[in-house]
Amino acid sequence: MTEPGFPCFFSAETDGHDPRFFLKRGQVAQNEERPQRAHLLRQALHQAGLTTAEPPRTDRAAMAQVHSARYLDFLSRVWDEWQAFPDHGPEIVANLHPQKDRHRYPSGIVGQAGWHMADTACPIGPGSHHAALRSVDCAIAAAQALAEGAGAAYALCRPPGHHANADTAGGHCLLNNAAIAAQHLRGHFDRVAILDIDVHHGNGTQEIFYDRADVLTVSIHAAPDAFYPFYLGYADETGAGTGAGFNLNLPLPIGSGDQVWLGAIRQGLARIAAFAPDRLVLSLGLDAHERDPLRGLAVTTPAFTQAASMIRNAGLPTAIIQEGGYLSDDLALNMAAFLDGWLGR
Amino acid sequence: MTEPGFPCFFSAETDGHDPRFFLKRGQVAQNEERPQRAHLLRQALHQAGLTTAEPPRTDRAAMAQVHSARYLDFLSRVWDEWQAFPDHGPEIVANLHPQKDRHRYPSGIVGQAGWHMADTACPIGPGSHHAALRSVDCAIAAAQALAEGAGAAYALCRPPGHHANADTAGGHCLLNNAAIAAQHLRGHFDRVAILDIDVHHGNGTQEIFYDRADVLTVSIHAAPDAFYPFYLGYADETGAGTGAGFNLNLPLPIGSGDQVWLGAIRQGLARIAAFAPDRLVLSLGLDAHERDPLRGLAVTTPAFTQAASMIRNAGLPTAIIQEGGYLSDDLALNMAAFLDGWLGR
Repeated sequence: MTEPGFPCFFSAETDGHDPRFFLKRGQVAQNEERPQRAHLLRQALHQAGLTTAEPPRTDRAAMAQVHSARYLDFLSRVWDEWQAFPDHGPEIVANLHPQKDRHRYPSGIVGQAGWHMADTACPIGPGSHHAALRSVDCAIAAAQALAEGAGAAYALCRPPGHHANADTAGGHCLLNNAAIAAQHLRGHFDRVAILDIDVHHGNGTQEIFYDRADVLTVSIHAAPDAFYPFYLGYADETGAGTGAGFNLNLPLPIGSGDQVWLGAIRQGLARIAAFAPDRLVLSLGLDAHERDPLRGLAVTTPAFTQAASMIRNAGLPTAIIQEGGYLSDDLALNMAAFLDGWLGR
Repeated sequence: MTEPGFPCFFSAETDGHDPRFFLKRGQVAQNEERPQRAHLLRQALHQAGLTTAEPPRTDRAAMAQVHSARYLDFLSRVWDEWQAFPDHGPEIVANLHPQKDRHRYPSGIVGQAGWHMADTACPIGPGSHHAALRSVDCAIAAAQALAEGAGAAYALCRPPGHHANADTAGGHCLLNNAAIAAQHLRGHFDRVAILDIDVHHGNGTQEIFYDRADVLTVSIHAAPDAFYPFYLGYADETGAGTGAGFNLNLPLPIGSGDQVWLGAIRQGLARIAAFAPDRLVLSLGLDAHERDPLRGLAVTTPAFTQAASMIRNAGLPTAIIQEGGYLSDDLALNMAAFLDGWLGR
């Protein structure tokens, strides 16, 4: 049973996405965005007395508003086309990349993979496309719950989404769950804000809404000049055109602790309050933690309780969309800490 | 001793570039751009009665006119900075990539590697930068020989160059030897043409000269829509601005044989004759061969003799710059066949 005031969604079908390849500083390593992550997060939900529901196969219209038709088509057929190579590997990993402003979209699948996959950290296996769609369904179900009056809802999304832009996968992300949730909410409300507290800049989300004033995007993250995603996430990126002033980046020095992080969240919430959105989407990464393998920030477990409490106290109906936070003993503890704050325990 | 009429240049120091990593269709494979290639090519030179000279550490001014200062600086320091990571791999392989028209140049070396390395096929090891500079020296020495009156000269360049553009390595290439040779020749002559008969489109060379009318670029290659480099090399790319009409791509259907290939070379030479250059740079790839591991075209060994003879008969003083052609028993045979045609034997 889901708690009526806080429905939670997870699809066991997302376990079908089980990426292996990862390239780190020139060496092949183990990918850390594995099904076990979701199991640890569910454990924390269960311990907090919450259960998850399988999301319905919802109306995915918002997905086609967020992603390009070409990219969605690519995702739907890439695995079958890849199988046609006699010497194909077990996963699709792109090995070259275009400059889209001056290069051509090729007909072959290897070139297309490089077009739509910005890095080597988003391998696509046999179950990836279906899992990504079911992950989107979780996000839409959470957004829909808000549309129907819930004060909060949680989507345990795997794969995560905030690094995927309209046309491109990247950084463990295939479809941008949070952006799709926000777009779905826009079908019901005029103004939506996205607050992204994952340790990495939400570059995909920023790019999707960069020229729009109806969705405010705020991201709090480790300074990108020497941290993923490197090429976006700087403080002077504030939006363009109609969207000028509707993107706020709060990059923090590598290794920043609780005080700096919570201060930035406070600042982000102040910007959101000024925007006065009808609904909030929270991109919840738990990888700002001090022992997360990526070591971007040094936030302690109790700070997740404080962050949750501050965000909850903003008083906005909120769809919480799971982003990062990788395999470690602390993952379930940090989720539990966040839920303590959110549920006011 | 070099033959006075046909000086040949090779630096044994380029053996210090010995890349290992290669990613093909999702699997890590052996890189095929290895020192052994140069040894096979030299064998063919020796059998034709030619010897190679170590090039002088020549005036590299043309290199700074072809490549960006930022890229040259990156190449000079990336290895040392990479060593500073406690968990670094044995080679630099980029794992994510920007869209340069809208993304920021980061301060960290991982992000910079992705900026300057367009694919996973140009790993940088401890000896790579020095080897690339010595490879450039070979190309400049060949160009300088032409400036001093030679009718032809050959540069055994490793790493090859034609996929490197002003700001980016890619496809086994770090510095664009042929473009630098052409630029060096421009210091002595008004008009230079580059004919690229490697099986892959010379995308780096095209981009470097795309808006210039003083260097005509002609490339004959397997159609790129499903073949490396995928994103450039189409027939309608004819130059821009002042350079409009000064780039000619002749993409050929995958698997084309001698007749089609030689016909395209004839067509390319006709365009070059109309341009009436003072000097010619030949980007000589031997990978159009029917048994080359890449299987783009199906050219036979005798066709390299015919190609060489046709190009020689164009009557232009020519700097021959080695590009691709990968490890196989045919590599030395194809080089020998080319030399037979060039030397009129």
